[in-house]
Amino acid sequence: MMNYLIIDKLIIDALKEDVPSEDITTNAIVSINSKSTVDLFAKEEGIIAGLHVFERVFTILGDVKLEFFKVDGDLVQPNTLIARLTGSTRHLLIGERTALNFLQRMSGIATLTKSFADKLKNTDAMLLDTRKTTPNMRIFEKYSVKIGGGHNHRFNLSDGVLLKDNHISAAGGVKNAVLAAKAQASFVRKIEVEVETLDMVKEALEVEADIIMLDNMDLETIRQAVTMIGKKAIIEVSGNVSLDTIEALAKTGVDYISVGALTHSAKILDLSLKNLKNI
Amino acid sequence: MMNYLIIDKLIIDALKEDVPSEDITTNAIVSINSKSTVDLFAKEEGIIAGLHVFERVFTILGDVKLEFFKVDGDLVQPNTLIARLTGSTRHLLIGERTALNFLQRMSGIATLTKSFADKLKNTDAMLLDTRKTTPNMRIFEKYSVKIGGGHNHRFNLSDGVLLKDNHISAAGGVKNAVLAAKAQASFVRKIEVEVETLDMVKEALEVEADIIMLDNMDLETIRQAVTMIGKKAIIEVSGNVSLDTIEALAKTGVDYISVGALTHSAKILDLSLKNLKNI
Amino acid sequence: MMNYLIIDKLIIDALKEDVPSEDITTNAIVSINSKSTVDLFAKEEGIIAGLHVFERVFTILGDVKLEFFKVDGDLVQPNTLIARLTGSTRHLLIGERTALNFLQRMSGIATLTKSFADKLKNTDAMLLDTRKTTPNMRIFEKYSVKIGGGHNHRFNLSDGVLLKDNHISAAGGVKNAVLAAKAQASFVRKIEVEVETLDMVKEALEVEADIIMLDNMDLETIRQAVTMIGKKAIIEVSGNVSLDTIEALAKTGVDYISVGALTHSAKILDLSLKNLKNI
Amino acid sequence: MMNYLIIDKLIIDALKEDVPSEDITTNAIVSINSKSTVDLFAKEEGIIAGLHVFERVFTILGDVKLEFFKVDGDLVQPNTLIARLTGSTRHLLIGERTALNFLQRMSGIATLTKSFADKLKNTDAMLLDTRKTTPNMRIFEKYSVKIGGGHNHRFNLSDGVLLKDNHISAAGGVKNAVLAAKAQASFVRKIEVEVETLDMVKEALEVEADIIMLDNMDLETIRQAVTMIGKKAIIEVSGNVSLDTIEALAKTGVDYISVGALTHSAKILDLSLKNLKNI
Amino acid sequence: MMNYLIIDKLIIDALKEDVPSEDITTNAIVSINSKSTVDLFAKEEGIIAGLHVFERVFTILGDVKLEFFKVDGDLVQPNTLIARLTGSTRHLLIGERTALNFLQRMSGIATLTKSFADKLKNTDAMLLDTRKTTPNMRIFEKYSVKIGGGHNHRFNLSDGVLLKDNHISAAGGVKNAVLAAKAQASFVRKIEVEVETLDMVKEALEVEADIIMLDNMDLETIRQAVTMIGKKAIIEVSGNVSLDTIEALAKTGVDYISVGALTHSAKILDLSLKNLKNI
Amino acid sequence: MMNYLIIDKLIIDALKEDVPSEDITTNAIVSINSKSTVDLFAKEEGIIAGLHVFERVFTILGDVKLEFFKVDGDLVQPNTLIARLTGSTRHLLIGERTALNFLQRMSGIATLTKSFADKLKNTDAMLLDTRKTTPNMRIFEKYSVKIGGGHNHRFNLSDGVLLKDNHISAAGGVKNAVLAAKAQASFVRKIEVEVETLDMVKEALEVEADIIMLDNMDLETIRQAVTMIGKKAIIEVSGNVSLDTIEALAKTGVDYISVGALTHSAKILDLSLKNLKNI
Repeated sequence: MMNYLIIDKLIIDALKEDVPSEDITTNAIVSINSKSTVDLFAKEEGIIAGLHVFERVFTILGDVKLEFFKVDGDLVQPNTLIARLTGSTRHLLIGERTALNFLQRMSGIATLTKSFADKLKNTDAMLLDTRKTTPNMRIFEKYSVKIGGGHNHRFNLSDGVLLKDNHISAAGGVKNAVLAAKAQASFVRKIEVEVETLDMVKEALEVEADIIMLDNMDLETIRQAVTMIGKKAIIEVSGNVSLDTIEALAKTGVDYISVGALTHSAKILDLSLKNLKNI
Repeated sequence: MMNYLIIDKLIIDALKEDVPSEDITTNAIVSINSKSTVDLFAKEEGIIAGLHVFERVFTILGDVKLEFFKVDGDLVQPNTLIARLTGSTRHLLIGERTALNFLQRMSGIATLTKSFADKLKNTDAMLLDTRKTTPNMRIFEKYSVKIGGGHNHRFNLSDGVLLKDNHISAAGGVKNAVLAAKAQASFVRKIEVEVETLDMVKEALEVEADIIMLDNMDLETIRQAVTMIGKKAIIEVSGNVSLDTIEALAKTGVDYISVGALTHSAKILDLSLKNLKNI
Repeated sequence: MMNYLIIDKLIIDALKEDVPSEDITTNAIVSINSKSTVDLFAKEEGIIAGLHVFERVFTILGDVKLEFFKVDGDLVQPNTLIARLTGSTRHLLIGERTALNFLQRMSGIATLTKSFADKLKNTDAMLLDTRKTTPNMRIFEKYSVKIGGGHNHRFNLSDGVLLKDNHISAAGGVKNAVLAAKAQASFVRKIEVEVETLDMVKEALEVEADIIMLDNMDLETIRQAVTMIGKKAIIEVSGNVSLDTIEALAKTGVDYISVGALTHSAKILDLSLKNLKNI
Repeated sequence: MMNYLIIDKLIIDALKEDVPSEDITTNAIVSINSKSTVDLFAKEEGIIAGLHVFERVFTILGDVKLEFFKVDGDLVQPNTLIARLTGSTRHLLIGERTALNFLQRMSGIATLTKSFADKLKNTDAMLLDTRKTTPNMRIFEKYSVKIGGGHNHRFNLSDGVLLKDNHISAAGGVKNAVLAAKAQASFVRKIEVEVETLDMVKEALEVEADIIMLDNMDLETIRQAVTMIGKKAIIEVSGNVSLDTIEALAKTGVDYISVGALTHSAKILDLSLKNLKNI
Repeated sequence: MMNYLIIDKLIIDALKEDVPSEDITTNAIVSINSKSTVDLFAKEEGIIAGLHVFERVFTILGDVKLEFFKVDGDLVQPNTLIARLTGSTRHLLIGERTALNFLQRMSGIATLTKSFADKLKNTDAMLLDTRKTTPNMRIFEKYSVKIGGGHNHRFNLSDGVLLKDNHISAAGGVKNAVLAAKAQASFVRKIEVEVETLDMVKEALEVEADIIMLDNMDLETIRQAVTMIGKKAIIEVSGNVSLDTIEALAKTGVDYISVGALTHSAKILDLSLKNLKNI
Repeated sequence: MMNYLIIDKLIIDALKEDVPSEDITTNAIVSINSKSTVDLFAKEEGIIAGLHVFERVFTILGDVKLEFFKVDGDLVQPNTLIARLTGSTRHLLIGERTALNFLQRMSGIATLTKSFADKLKNTDAMLLDTRKTTPNMRIFEKYSVKIGGGHNHRFNLSDGVLLKDNHISAAGGVKNAVLAAKAQASFVRKIEVEVETLDMVKEALEVEADIIMLDNMDLETIRQAVTMIGKKAIIEVSGNVSLDTIEALAKTGVDYISVGALTHSAKILDLSLKNLKNI
């Protein structure tokens, strides 16, 4: 569960994006004191994630109570009843789209993550996300990855050192980059470096990088890199990983496999609010 | 091109999401006065959208100039050079991910939209988006739909009247809902109502709705509805429209077809910044 | 009643405008635990509007309860008791001016609107407001117009198309302007165009504008325009409408009459908080 | 001239109030590179105030230059050319209403203030404003009072001590209130107290209030109060002062006369942007 | 007690400074439903100030109750139990540092202020703070000065007139500066002027400054200035006042002594949260 | 140099704290077009830090140029000329206090840090700061520590794992805490744990903590801990470290020594703006 201190601002911004002045449809047809119930159903199979964000939309609007029949991480099927909402009809209708936009996207990410994570069940590798998230949605998307069975890489540029191709170009090579990072970064940081060749792996080992990311290598090169590295560094592999290729990657003996698609290309999980009834 | 007054806040929020204090990797390895060039390439085929948002990220950071070789709406291929960036090495590295996260998502939406819009080329129907957008990304996503050849439905709950299933339940039927909306909403609004059956179409016509949205009907029912409505209302059709089904839908004679997937389930277009060189 | 999501920020900004650090008068003379009652009276005749905004000021400050004897839209007379406030003496004194500044201005607008709306009682025309509102007060001022018996025109530049004189100059004539708007604007929009001559009315009809606004025409020209237009478009009239002239305008058969003065030149309704008593 | 640090936020908020997403009319008909000139004219006689706020609206939007033919405080007549604007046609049209809403209201206040101030020309009394300003407009409104020839009372509850009727009730009388204020408030503050009777004047003098405000007294009582007070305190008079009564009030010998109507009930000064021409 | 309207934003900003996304330590080891108690102890002798700010940190986080055994202004000793906190273990741990950072700094200021104020016990002079406060901490720091027995000078540049050396240079001398200030500033302001020589004192008296600040004068010159001024103005003295020199300064007969060090150079009071126990 | 993206908001907030409406002193005596120069001098010996923050205050106000004669990290003496400012007299006077409040505090921290860092010159230990910073000043304070020769510990609760006494209580011991953290935290994090006894050191080693913080141990116990740990973990020592004790601590062989006083109890470095001259 995420801290409301952080997510409330994003939820309020989203509500104002959808209602800059008033909901002219709802206000035209529903009186201010009207109360209703409405049900949240799944329309397809997947993993649900973000129920407390969904709830928070209505808490912020006020006068709505939610009863949940599922929790984050549960598998839902078409027509699974996930929650029942009771309260101000206006607020139910005003919050519907914003609440669903959060929940559908978060559940979509959890569902896709689950399908990747399942491929690693019989391996020692762990699934990672990336910073390829939707602007201003990272906290929700990284949470969804965890619900789906993945692990989080660093959260942002301030909380982890990762020397990528352009950094290495800027610094003049792997060694320079790693040594500069070790000299400047806080001692609480592990130093991770992205490499594309076995020569770069060798350099990274010589300067004792904590984590070596093998970027876009073929399987055979990855195997050689794994052998070279042994236990001297943590090994991450990245680059166009698909559901078809991830298991083979994992079996090379790498520690972590990062998949940008988890957050940048998941489709939503289809959900809907149905059966609104005045009470 | 979007108004900077509106988008700057969202871009700054996104930059702060990725850099809450400082970019510890870049600051460790690059001196403050270092200058570089770096190139923006496409890694797959698609429609580019959001180049001025991409540029604005670096304008906000400062000390970076961009030269563009493509404009929004252009088709790019793998290895197409889209732009060259020149300026502060620190700002190039700090802004890279945020700028790409915007551009890749916007281009992904434009690319998916184009594939739907192409199916309508030989028809009279037009393609519409929905409010099923990512929270706090709507302005970028609706712009991308236009670049891809789609049209925008209403922007938010304050600027258009659309009576959906739950509104009709709340109001006690199509007629009540439309009449209440006509009485209360500003005279500048068209009144749109969502219907699921031919009986509801009939009701909508009796109270002279301006736009009738046929929701989740089969093709045959849609054809009957189109005949019933004639020129008495604008006709929109919605509900799980796919690339396989959209052309047949269009040929029923409806005016507009709305597709939520344009914004809620587009994968990104893969792009990258490459070849950073100190100058 | 307006959505607190939207108005709370404006109310808090107003409170901070009046209390950037602390209320040095109140804090000097009243202990933090002191409780009082105080009464809200009318000092002149008019229509009350904005009671929930008045209440919200104290809800935001906290520890104050309000009992209302009137509702928005009620006619009040000098010495009418409108509400009794009970709670923290400090908050009663800190919120007094901000709460009254909102309520007096909103009630002033409702009162002026009512005087215009009353002139239209025996006609078919309806009274409209404009965008000539006080900066950052539009949501309150448009609400007050509705309480006074007027109707709202579009809320802002994003939610309605209105081609005015400068737009027509920019576009090169009425026809060009209307056709461009029809091609570009969302299909949910009605296209309104402002015209100054009968020739311009003719052009507007040829390109099937949805709404034609007759700007600053004399009565005879308006009558001719009404005849020309018939039922082919909605007719709005605007331009220096006064209490003396509005009824004659209405009798020409126009549908709507817009009056900028409702929001830009209403004087306040005089109200005051009296009889503070410690309890 | 006001500090941009403070007013920019309010101007940007006002622009976003009028353009939450985009100006759909302007964007439909004007290309992004179009340039125009347009003229700012007066439509009635009055005092102009707020030209730099008007200008700032366009500076914030960008790409517009202004040439001014009048300065704040000048008297304008119908058809006086006040300024010529040259630049982005889109920005001229997008900013028009917001810029005019500020300028018209500010000029209206300056004009009304001037009419009151003129009545005091042959007296020793000075004209004051109050805190009865429009929420979130105080900085603009108090500036306009000064342009019109008035003086500013305190700006807010944090920067001046004024013991009013409800404070005196809360404190248990004039003496208690003044003594508590003297004991608690910063030594840089003058202590002002509002009195309604000559007995209260006497109390205020005994505890050496710095400023005594005579509230709603008749002329004869005011004269007696002036005599009682002599040079022992500064004298302010307030309460329903009109253009008809202010000169007689001034001649009683009071130092200051405060008029809430300056800011709460001024009508706007009618101004308009005309003659837009593409260049 | 400060107004939550003002301080909540600063407290929330401070919490977000310390928790931009989540508390990764706490969330890793404590379940969301865990409840605990923890005690707030003093670790050294001093004056406690800011307990309601400390409490507010946890109120904003939620689900924590506080029982206080001391109030602001109390003297505490090493191991004094100040408060017991009971509630969400996560929130206790997340808020600990931010709450202590406020309380320790505020108490440090109160403690230092008390030591200066005690030196004035047997004199008629009063202790003042300055605007030499920590950016964005002024409201907390000026409050702490009052708790420690000091008085507040003006709060900011908008609420008091103080003509300092650079103002006098800009205006061309003491007389010009004071006369310009009297002509322009609101009549509710006292005019204070900083002087460095007896000649400047003379000038200040001639133009009837309300308050004369003797800046960096030696004791003998101060005595002469006090004699010159008599009761004709309030006298403030400032400039590198220390615990060793303040009493002698006070005995010269000045009214106020301002000490920048109260807010700019106080060390913190050492406090800590101990004995966390799950319940 | 810090990123303006992050610090501008804090600087603007600080300016608004000091000027909520206008600088009434400056505006009364200086015309808007007046230009001046003024000099920034040191009044005591120390290390200067924060010159670009000082400059940024005036850049944000506008129309001021700065020429610097010193850079961050330089040692200054009484009367050292640090910078000359040239530009708008109003902006020089309005920004003076806010700019100095930042610079004096930052320089004070750098100066105190330098005195601690100098004690470690002949040792292998490095000096660290803590999270005991002033609310909303952390980015400035941690930067100043680096200028003074210290190193930064983690920046906030989101970017580093540190299990302190209360976390260990909550988790039920050192082992549980470390194991839970290893299981839950991102693989990019080092796990640091605070220990108070040699038994706890042993536990920390058994579960392979990356960093062990020895809290409030005596020298002899620290020496034993250093021997026990060897190269198996990084060693940090903390707890009431003073200028007198730090060298002895360093010589025990620990890697890092953290000193909260660097940021929580540094006095300012005295600086001033002098010799304002109109030009």
